Amino acid sequence: MAFKHLTIKDDGHIVRCTIANPPRHTFVSQSISEMHSLLNDLETNDQIRVLVLTGASDEYFIRHYEVTELVDVAEANIDSKKAPPTGPAEKLHGFNELCLRLENAPFMVVAALNGSAAGGGCEISLSCDFRLMKDGDFHYGLPETNVGILPGGGGTQRYARMLGTAKALDLIIHGTVLSPAEALDLGLIHRLYPATSFDQDVDAFVENLASRAPVALRSAKQSIRRGVDLPIDQALLHEQQAFDQTMVTEDAAKSMRAYLTASVQLGDMDFDFKGE
Amino acid sequence: MAFKHLTIKDDGHIVRCTIANPPRHTFVSQSISEMHSLLNDLETNDQIRVLVLTGASDEYFIRHYEVTELVDVAEANIDSKKAPPTGPAEKLHGFNELCLRLENAPFMVVAALNGSAAGGGCEISLSCDFRLMKDGDFHYGLPETNVGILPGGGGTQRYARMLGTAKALDLIIHGTVLSPAEALDLGLIHRLYPATSFDQDVDAFVENLASRAPVALRSAKQSIRRGVDLPIDQALLHEQQAFDQTMVTEDAAKSMRAYLTASVQLGDMDFDFKGE
Amino acid sequence: MAFKHLTIKDDGHIVRCTIANPPRHTFVSQSISEMHSLLNDLETNDQIRVLVLTGASDEYFIRHYEVTELVDVAEANIDSKKAPPTGPAEKLHGFNELCLRLENAPFMVVAALNGSAAGGGCEISLSCDFRLMKDGDFHYGLPETNVGILPGGGGTQRYARMLGTAKALDLIIHGTVLSPAEALDLGLIHRLYPATSFDQDVDAFVENLASRAPVALRSAKQSIRRGVDLPIDQALLHEQQAFDQTMVTEDAAKSMRAYLTASVQLGDMDFDFKGE
Repeated sequence: MAFKHLTIKDDGHIVRCTIANPPRHTFVSQSISEMHSLLNDLETNDQIRVLVLTGASDEYFIRHYEVTELVDVAEANIDSKKAPPTGPAEKLHGFNELCLRLENAPFMVVAALNGSAAGGGCEISLSCDFRLMKDGDFHYGLPETNVGILPGGGGTQRYARMLGTAKALDLIIHGTVLSPAEALDLGLIHRLYPATSFDQDVDAFVENLASRAPVALRSAKQSIRRGVDLPIDQALLHEQQAFDQTMVTEDAAKSMRAYLTASVQLGDMDFDFKGE
Repeated sequence: MAFKHLTIKDDGHIVRCTIANPPRHTFVSQSISEMHSLLNDLETNDQIRVLVLTGASDEYFIRHYEVTELVDVAEANIDSKKAPPTGPAEKLHGFNELCLRLENAPFMVVAALNGSAAGGGCEISLSCDFRLMKDGDFHYGLPETNVGILPGGGGTQRYARMLGTAKALDLIIHGTVLSPAEALDLGLIHRLYPATSFDQDVDAFVENLASRAPVALRSAKQSIRRGVDLPIDQALLHEQQAFDQTMVTEDAAKSMRAYLTASVQLGDMDFDFKGE
Repeated sequence: MAFKHLTIKDDGHIVRCTIANPPRHTFVSQSISEMHSLLNDLETNDQIRVLVLTGASDEYFIRHYEVTELVDVAEANIDSKKAPPTGPAEKLHGFNELCLRLENAPFMVVAALNGSAAGGGCEISLSCDFRLMKDGDFHYGLPETNVGILPGGGGTQRYARMLGTAKALDLIIHGTVLSPAEALDLGLIHRLYPATSFDQDVDAFVENLASRAPVALRSAKQSIRRGVDLPIDQALLHEQQAFDQTMVTEDAAKSMRAYLTASVQLGDMDFDFKGE
């Protein structure tokens, strides 16, 4: 694949995707379609254990979705006196489809936030499994209401689920962007790494993930993602499926047997998982 | 409208409603019906951007729901040997209907907690979009189980959603009331203001809210409120509707264009929103 | 009842159940069936107000589910080339049924965590209403992915609901176990007591619970448990039922009347509740 906005580095178990759009560093409609193409390939490659998304510039992961595209639509709507919609949309747009694909991908997805991420850039990262941020004079958040719109790429929903409605309302209604430390404090990002060691810290995090039991990780992710939308009794039936998926793997059988033999604490295992 | 318990001050975009019931400072059945009457008017007035609820006394926002009303019902139930209900209620009572109306109102609803709020007083505030509390020797919470009942005006549900079931169970089962600082720490209240500047701090908060893009705020609130009760894919369809509602407004088109021209950070916009 | 793994002490309102399985201190299939037998008795005894679960050893509440049982199944699956399941399980297994019974029991269930609890031991405690932990060199958490499986006794679901998906993914994907202080900080446990006073602190906590209004506690628990799985308007109908259940009790009528007479704060009531 030849991409305009994406640079792909495939190390077998780990795929790194660097997103670029100089000089504005925004996400555009072509970024969406390129990401879908990438996922078409990755989703059917069962060697992939981790996908890492990062930004190409020094300042931004993704600055935000390209406002030029949005304002053109809004102005055309006004010129044509388009009426506001009277019910929920009938079909998810490509950006939301992309975020759902990341959220449900059969591998871990890590956002390596090498700089600021606002609006659509923040929303992409919210659909990743892990958010690792570089410390510095960066911002993170959903400022959309400052320009009369709202987070329309999942931001209202994923904030509300991560932070609760009280905090989500506060941040979204005020269009607040956060410092990296504030984002960490709220649990929006998982790790905050010093700028000087960010690349190595991300590599270590990602390599550790890739060394862990692939079927267990994929099934655990699937169980959590599906289960939160279901009543507890139905959620448990999905969890049982996820558990049973691990119980037919050599990785589970061999590492459990090794644990019993070694008599170590469960947290201290070191095992070479094969992904089967 | 002439109210016994409510005093209304309408500044155009901002409506202030002061709730009084001296000397007990409780919420009574007539308070409920007066609030419904008020909302009948406000919901159809598209000039309203913010509704502020506050209490008239120095000590209380709302002390709690009037226990005299409740104990009369309980004693009559016992005299008539009324059996406990065997299934969920068939119809929401007026207090719950009121809270849902506040939660879904097409404007921001702010509880200016000028003093203590327990039981039903706390529950009213939990259905507001923002809770701003005066610091001092006040309490906030749901003490109902101390007198053999439980929070029956949404308290068990809104606590569980805001705090998670583990913390909600702890506070409700023990009938705990919190200091303002504890309520802030748990995220139950959004802001804690010094007593000396409370009125000005509330005014500044409310005036800022009223200056922000009305359609964006209303649609963002609607998206969050509806979405948390839906599976993520359906929730995103509602969010898309909310987003599209903003995308037919002059406020969005003009402020996005201004942002592109000025090349400022999204968080630093200053724009005169018209609500259209 | 004569149990191999459980020792029962019944004080009327408070039942203490000590779980033992020396020398491994794991939970085994017979532990599950014995717990079900115990609950068969307790659920129909309306004198019970609190069930306390604790571990018999100095080191463990429950070490984890017995891995020998699991690895035998996994190895048999591999020998028979069993295929992974293609849909959710059709029936909850006995461990999940047990956890749901604890969660929905008509009395308070307290986990007195006298030592470490990992995997299935942690999962049992997550389905209790309260988790009280002894401070010391203990661990708490879900390390399953370290041995190629995942928390299959409700752990992925109850972590996600208590901590949100972002934190739940982090802890489960990394198989992290926590110190008691970390578990407290995350809100996974409710109280952390010094080792020297743990037994007395647990007794005081439990006796206080048993002194509180039984119908109110049971109904509040039921309202919270049912409501979190429902949209807010339906949840409120269940809460109204729970409230109405308390409003036919002498405990409610008499303690509310006492409150009105004494004119004390709701939090300072001291009343002899009869459970009727």
